[in-house]
Amino acid sequence: MTTIDSTLLPFFQPQGIVLVGASADPTKLGFGVARNLLQSDYKGAIHFVNPKGGALLSRPLHPHIADVPPPVDLAFLLIPAPFVPQALQECGQKGIRAVIIAAGGFRETGETGQSLEDDCLRIAHQYNMRLMGPNCIGLLDTHLPFDATFLPPPGPTPGAVAFISHSGAICAAVVDWARGQGFGLSRLVSLGNQLDVCETDVLPAIAADPYTRVVTMYLEGVTDGRHFMQVAQAVTRHKPVLALKVGRFASGQQAVASHTGALAGADAAFDAAFRRAGIIRAHTNEELFDWARALAWSPLPRGPRVAVLTNAGGPGVTAVDAIESSGLQLAVLQPETEAQLRAVLPPAASVHNPVDMLAGASPEQYADSLRLLLADEGVDSVLLILPPPPMYSAGGVAKAIIPTIYAAQKPVLVTLMGERLIQEAMEHFRAARVPEYRFPERTVAALAVLHQYAAYVRQPVVPVALPDVRPESAQPTLAQVDAAGFLSPTAVSQLLTAYGIPCPANHLAQNAQEAAALARQMGFPVALKLVAEGITHKSDVGGVRLGLVDETAVQTIFTDMLAQVRQREPEAVIAGVLVQQMIPAGQEVIVGVARDPQFGPLVMFGSGGVEVEGLGDVAFALAPLTEADVDYLLAHTWAGRKLAGFRHLPPADATAVRHTLLRLGQLAADFPQLAEIEINPLLVLPAGQGVWAVDARARVGNEIRRLGD
Amino acid sequence: MTTIDSTLLPFFQPQGIVLVGASADPTKLGFGVARNLLQSDYKGAIHFVNPKGGALLSRPLHPHIADVPPPVDLAFLLIPAPFVPQALQECGQKGIRAVIIAAGGFRETGETGQSLEDDCLRIAHQYNMRLMGPNCIGLLDTHLPFDATFLPPPGPTPGAVAFISHSGAICAAVVDWARGQGFGLSRLVSLGNQLDVCETDVLPAIAADPYTRVVTMYLEGVTDGRHFMQVAQAVTRHKPVLALKVGRFASGQQAVASHTGALAGADAAFDAAFRRAGIIRAHTNEELFDWARALAWSPLPRGPRVAVLTNAGGPGVTAVDAIESSGLQLAVLQPETEAQLRAVLPPAASVHNPVDMLAGASPEQYADSLRLLLADEGVDSVLLILPPPPMYSAGGVAKAIIPTIYAAQKPVLVTLMGERLIQEAMEHFRAARVPEYRFPERTVAALAVLHQYAAYVRQPVVPVALPDVRPESAQPTLAQVDAAGFLSPTAVSQLLTAYGIPCPANHLAQNAQEAAALARQMGFPVALKLVAEGITHKSDVGGVRLGLVDETAVQTIFTDMLAQVRQREPEAVIAGVLVQQMIPAGQEVIVGVARDPQFGPLVMFGSGGVEVEGLGDVAFALAPLTEADVDYLLAHTWAGRKLAGFRHLPPADATAVRHTLLRLGQLAADFPQLAEIEINPLLVLPAGQGVWAVDARARVGNEIRRLGD
Repeated sequence: MTTIDSTLLPFFQPQGIVLVGASADPTKLGFGVARNLLQSDYKGAIHFVNPKGGALLSRPLHPHIADVPPPVDLAFLLIPAPFVPQALQECGQKGIRAVIIAAGGFRETGETGQSLEDDCLRIAHQYNMRLMGPNCIGLLDTHLPFDATFLPPPGPTPGAVAFISHSGAICAAVVDWARGQGFGLSRLVSLGNQLDVCETDVLPAIAADPYTRVVTMYLEGVTDGRHFMQVAQAVTRHKPVLALKVGRFASGQQAVASHTGALAGADAAFDAAFRRAGIIRAHTNEELFDWARALAWSPLPRGPRVAVLTNAGGPGVTAVDAIESSGLQLAVLQPETEAQLRAVLPPAASVHNPVDMLAGASPEQYADSLRLLLADEGVDSVLLILPPPPMYSAGGVAKAIIPTIYAAQKPVLVTLMGERLIQEAMEHFRAARVPEYRFPERTVAALAVLHQYAAYVRQPVVPVALPDVRPESAQPTLAQVDAAGFLSPTAVSQLLTAYGIPCPANHLAQNAQEAAALARQMGFPVALKLVAEGITHKSDVGGVRLGLVDETAVQTIFTDMLAQVRQREPEAVIAGVLVQQMIPAGQEVIVGVARDPQFGPLVMFGSGGVEVEGLGDVAFALAPLTEADVDYLLAHTWAGRKLAGFRHLPPADATAVRHTLLRLGQLAADFPQLAEIEINPLLVLPAGQGVWAVDARARVGNEIRRLGD
Repeated sequence: MTTIDSTLLPFFQPQGIVLVGASADPTKLGFGVARNLLQSDYKGAIHFVNPKGGALLSRPLHPHIADVPPPVDLAFLLIPAPFVPQALQECGQKGIRAVIIAAGGFRETGETGQSLEDDCLRIAHQYNMRLMGPNCIGLLDTHLPFDATFLPPPGPTPGAVAFISHSGAICAAVVDWARGQGFGLSRLVSLGNQLDVCETDVLPAIAADPYTRVVTMYLEGVTDGRHFMQVAQAVTRHKPVLALKVGRFASGQQAVASHTGALAGADAAFDAAFRRAGIIRAHTNEELFDWARALAWSPLPRGPRVAVLTNAGGPGVTAVDAIESSGLQLAVLQPETEAQLRAVLPPAASVHNPVDMLAGASPEQYADSLRLLLADEGVDSVLLILPPPPMYSAGGVAKAIIPTIYAAQKPVLVTLMGERLIQEAMEHFRAARVPEYRFPERTVAALAVLHQYAAYVRQPVVPVALPDVRPESAQPTLAQVDAAGFLSPTAVSQLLTAYGIPCPANHLAQNAQEAAALARQMGFPVALKLVAEGITHKSDVGGVRLGLVDETAVQTIFTDMLAQVRQREPEAVIAGVLVQQMIPAGQEVIVGVARDPQFGPLVMFGSGGVEVEGLGDVAFALAPLTEADVDYLLAHTWAGRKLAGFRHLPPADATAVRHTLLRLGQLAADFPQLAEIEINPLLVLPAGQGVWAVDARARVGNEIRRLGD
């Protein structure tokens, strides 16, 4: 696990805290923080500062920070923005090493606020102080315990879910809502403007907390994408991290030169980054905490096979629908299990999965059946459905099954349907830390996340070795660029060849005679492809002609192509026409590289051709790729799936595609100056016969365009 | 609106009810129904029958049905299955016209149960009685009022949402859950095995109830798809109907001959049927009732433009994400609105949409801003976000804004975040029938459904007239079939031509010489296509060769093709080779017809070629098509969107595609014996130049295969 930055320790294990701006007026936030600090039962020293002096909640109000007696290593500044720099000076002089700045009125309000932030940061550096905020509500730890927030009481109940948030309002709502949902929090951190301490800084510190079993994050972005990923990756191997990333549609896409660029929005980058880092991405607040509860309270399943146990057919059917569409499987029960179920259930009951005990099921039948299902080797988890039983109380069923769930090494998630009639059962389940949800769909979604995380931690990290790539041969090609940064076709071929990606023979011809001679030399059939500045999609202007079978055809088409292009694109600067070896027929895919400003190079794979943007059959992963990334790219696209063959389409060389993807990812990682690469099509020959980068472009550029964010 | 079947009236407006199987034992269901009947404040006559006699809840227990005094037109049988037929006889003799059978133990248990059902139905027919159930929990009406169920008390609060359910357990859970969610029910019907009365029967009766503003349905299937659609279509023009259809994955797909068949699963048919009938399809129980509350309580928006009003940035961003991805739009506020907002809000507030009033927003600022947004002509609805305000109470905000929401002609949906701190606000909103949800995503989803339903009722039903179709010319072609029911290629051409779908000239040749002669006659280039029984995908076995430019090529390829096919498919019975006029290049799409056992003919449209199944870029609508269906098919597929042109792809003749789809739909509707039609590809020429059905197959068959259900 990542080492915890020791400079952050005063935030999480303060010896003493001073609240600057403490107030005796109960309507002020400066009273609220004082009250929360005292009521939280924090064992360290608590000091209050207010220039007016006096007393607050039986404690003195010191007029100055300098007056505060030791120990004090953390300050909470609840004073207006313009006074913050001076207070920071005083904190620094006092030897305080960590400061929470709650006030708004900084960069979010314009230039003056920004300059205030600059002052704060300068002072913090001068005194080696760490800053949290500004514009935040503070942080709390229910186990230390410690509550340095101005949240209205009562604070959250102690629990196993930590919450890191870029939004303070969401913190307030979540703390209140969690109480009603029956789960507690371990730590909560509101990050505000992140002038200094950011989400990446606090993640390992939060994850290191022994009371925290799962970390949830509400993110509006990340500060340094690659660093965040590295840190998160170290955490997720040991503790699950869930994130809700908002601001997906914050702005439109900018114009980009390639299909890859057009398709690689910021959201695709976050998806790829979260996947690589092992972060589970929620898309709604409810998903975030539904899943967190399951991860915090349940053992992980060994596989995807779910047994459904119900006293009613309808919700059973709904559960099966959800299981089939979520990547889980309906377990096939062992014959012995079915026989034993038969013995404890009425004759009309269904002992096949989903097991329907019928409406009369007693607490004992629930418990017996659950035990039998858990004992079945073909069952990895159990989804237990409990609408109010007509003849028994739901609470009675809860009491009968909780000991079994407690002892089980497999997850048992409960769909507890209703409201008033299930209150007692709900309280029992919550007290026993059994995840319960109102409807089967949400239960199944949580179970699927348990399976997803279990599969992630089981999957070994296999280092990818690519002994055959030659960066030293690639390097010189990057200088052969036009004004827009595009590599010459020859340079692209050399670049890809240096990384073991085969390119057909091709040479630039300046006139029809030269083209014919080159064609004769490399053997027919050949293709002619225009090379011109200012034209990125050659086929759009008639600049690509394939399958020319003799010298006459080459000469005729050469002349014709130039005439056509000059007419349609009179501004284009034509460098010549590429004469290219034709490749036998195969499946056509697209592979590409785009660069995200947050997460760096992304590799794209999918269905190519001119319609790649329209079809959208593409997937992304972060470069360099792991074998798991390549699995993902091939499994999540039709282009990847059909490599195995489909109807008349013979199986294609999927191994060569894998090699190409890994090498392209390495190339992108090795040369940060490569802004975009696109091979469209990459022609995939039948199994064992390799691939050809039939048409490829590459662009060098320092300016990184934010794609869609 | 559909006329209500008068035979169903005793279920919904009974003059008197007899409960057969009433019990004085409070642990029995026969006590529960008696108690609910009495406690429901039902104004009609209530009679109890139990062979033991005695009294129950101060009323006599009559030993026989015959002993019951008038009035009585409805019976509730709560007796074991084997006794039901005899009781039905007695009901019939008593003149009772409607019977609810609660017991299980009928067809769901096997042959004996099935035969019991047959007996019941025979007796019902004999006496003109209608039956509800068996295996159901009864029905209730909170406004009549009337509660003939054995649900544990208290029953639902009176409300505007009706619920029709195939599952009794779901009824119990929903009634209980609804209370906690703060909405009431108008009527609830549990249908059980639907021996007689089914979902289609009760839908118009329920919708006719003046207290019911929205009908929700939990469906495990429908009894007669086309009839259900017609009935529902009449209802949804006046009252919204929401349905949750479960059992999507009830069984695997069966083998089918065409791409269209393979892709047209039962779920696609339900989607198409619900869309045509104007039924809004929910995918989870929570969606069903989230959306029902909004439809029951809110006016409909005039358009998709949403203003967001918040006191916190984070949830505002989440709301914008959800709006952008749900078919709604973020409203652009008028400059006057922004100026007026500026006047009531602090300087740092954001007066652009999403309007962020900042954390200090007072109840008055909420109310003022809401009024300004509602007055803006560019705003169709308002999403108001209310996390617990740090300085005010959420309840105070609720009280300040409810009068404005009440008076508004536009929907205002509220995201009320939290739990304990929002209790008072929640109660105010619920009492005032203002839809409130915990998180922005669910609020937006409900708002999107309001917009969807508003767009549906606004959209005029345009009758489609196709004067140029000639069923009389199509009829004879249906006899020209092979053993498997496939029409001969010539017959397919004649069939499509009769419906105005152009087919290239083509003739069957028996030998190479004949093929060459035919080709010369129709003009080069031509295509050769194998015609053989037992081979459905010709291109898979080398049976399709295109672009043959002279007689020699035709002769060589003819011979070669037959040799190849004989080698690869020695069992195939070769009828000859089709010589076909070649068509100029264009966009290729697939159009097809499959027949669903429930809903009849479905028209498919999408991206064609051999990979149609893999790419899955297809959409379905029910035949015959409306113009709105054609809009849907073109808008929901890349194949349809690219008809407008894309990069180098010139715009294609979308009008001709529309014509073809409408005519194909009419053809499918006119000839129920057509089991499958597939045109792949339909070649679409540039705008104004029409389409060609280049390759088409059609199959006649009576056996209807259930696709995926």
